Amino acid sequence: MRNFGNSHDSMSLNTATVRKQWALPRIIDECARVGIRRIAPWRDQVADAGIERVAAQLKAHDIGLSGYVRGGLFTAADAAGRQQAIDDNRRALDEACALGAPCLVVVAGGLPGALAGKLVSRDIAAARAQVRDGIAELLEHARERAMPLAIEPLHPMYAADRACINTLAQALDLCADLEPTVGQADQQSRRILGVAIDAYHTWWDPSLEAQVARAGREQRILAFHVCDWLVPTTDLLNDRGMMGDGVIDLKRLRGWVEATGFDGAAEVEIFSNRWWAEPGERVLSTCIERFRTCV
Amino acid sequence: MRNFGNSHDSMSLNTATVRKQWALPRIIDECARVGIRRIAPWRDQVADAGIERVAAQLKAHDIGLSGYVRGGLFTAADAAGRQQAIDDNRRALDEACALGAPCLVVVAGGLPGALAGKLVSRDIAAARAQVRDGIAELLEHARERAMPLAIEPLHPMYAADRACINTLAQALDLCADLEPTVGQADQQSRRILGVAIDAYHTWWDPSLEAQVARAGREQRILAFHVCDWLVPTTDLLNDRGMMGDGVIDLKRLRGWVEATGFDGAAEVEIFSNRWWAEPGERVLSTCIERFRTCV
Repeated sequence: MRNFGNSHDSMSLNTATVRKQWALPRIIDECARVGIRRIAPWRDQVADAGIERVAAQLKAHDIGLSGYVRGGLFTAADAAGRQQAIDDNRRALDEACALGAPCLVVVAGGLPGALAGKLVSRDIAAARAQVRDGIAELLEHARERAMPLAIEPLHPMYAADRACINTLAQALDLCADLEPTVGQADQQSRRILGVAIDAYHTWWDPSLEAQVARAGREQRILAFHVCDWLVPTTDLLNDRGMMGDGVIDLKRLRGWVEATGFDGAAEVEIFSNRWWAEPGERVLSTCIERFRTCV
Repeated sequence: MRNFGNSHDSMSLNTATVRKQWALPRIIDECARVGIRRIAPWRDQVADAGIERVAAQLKAHDIGLSGYVRGGLFTAADAAGRQQAIDDNRRALDEACALGAPCLVVVAGGLPGALAGKLVSRDIAAARAQVRDGIAELLEHARERAMPLAIEPLHPMYAADRACINTLAQALDLCADLEPTVGQADQQSRRILGVAIDAYHTWWDPSLEAQVARAGREQRILAFHVCDWLVPTTDLLNDRGMMGDGVIDLKRLRGWVEATGFDGAAEVEIFSNRWWAEPGERVLSTCIERFRTCV
């Protein structure tokens, strides 16, 4: 297991963490200033700044990506909606390539219409089938672009409105279904389908240790995200905790992830009304301190 | 699958649903008035009213129990705390017997100290081991009393502070560990360990259909609870929905449960600031209407 105590070289910042304080160009400048070498930017932030400007700025600062956020949201009320989602995912793949991302993070989508308050169906099995079909349809474009899709299982409390892929086992089953392992040679080739393992979404799972090991064996780990689970949690969406302020044993989880051979970034992703109200500089310095001591 | 359309004979009311409106004696009277034949009362409500009075009132109205709420909460900071929990569970078992309950509902407990805001350990595997040991220690007393323990897996969003048993598979594994099936004769004897399947806690689970069938095969289904999952959910604890107001396909789930041969009550359990603010009579009549149309 790597020692993070004296360095944050292996830290990435998911740029939603300071999205209320700064636009993306300023976030990149601030990251460069404090020695954060990787980020995971969101599509809307990139669009606001202009993708060519962002690409040039990243290059000038020698800052890389740990992932591009995000594709997915495959579930829709009708065929036209599902096609729109596919088309939008194709654009997301192209943007991920333009920014040199190692993967496109994929958030499945929930029950059709639920997030918009216009529920179309209570059939979560059908929603899951839509997600499978959507990823299947996207695979060829992803292969052509050599841009891996990192399926991120979200916490079950988001099953209705954001993602009906809710456990690591389920995400890995989906990967195995759509991109089977057929032999030794295949195992050594680069995967196009994998997973993003986020501590917040997965820490509670009784099968987590076994499934992280499986994800390693099946060469699926594309990203590792950290923050913390607060007690009490006062908001389902925007009350994630700074690492160390909650109940997740982050070092143990990182140990499992790194035992598989994973040597990528640990990406800090905190959606928090409390931290969005702080000065951005203070958020970044706290993230770095906690990354070194608690992750 | 039973037809609930013209009758609520198979409905039970978890008395927390109207706990802010009425004390338990009034709840029982109101249930009798509207033809609710079963309830699941809470220990604190019973203690406030006096257990002998409650037992006599239930008998006078010919109202039965679908479960007694609740035992468990086995996790604690030290041995003394764990022993206190065992002792308290023994008392809960005796109370369940005095009230003629078919089972004692068991909620595991979370990380030691978390609910009180004094976290002692982030080791959720150790908390799970404490729960296993606590149930194991309680088993003999439960057998002597012939009072089954219904382990209720809670939604993963309660893993930190209320229950570290979070999936039906995990609860069934625990049952099989502590009370193995050894043969045909054993399968036909009455189980002392089983599960309570609550729609709110389990609806998201991709393995739910398979695990409900397994629970049936292993003769573990002691209780079935219903309410609904709202989008958005604005409070982790007290924003459960009235059946039909949310996204859960309750009829499908009940179909799976009844396909195993389960013919017990469907227990309505709604913790809701919104419904606690309504007149109790309106809550009961709405529960009955929705029980007939949505469950």
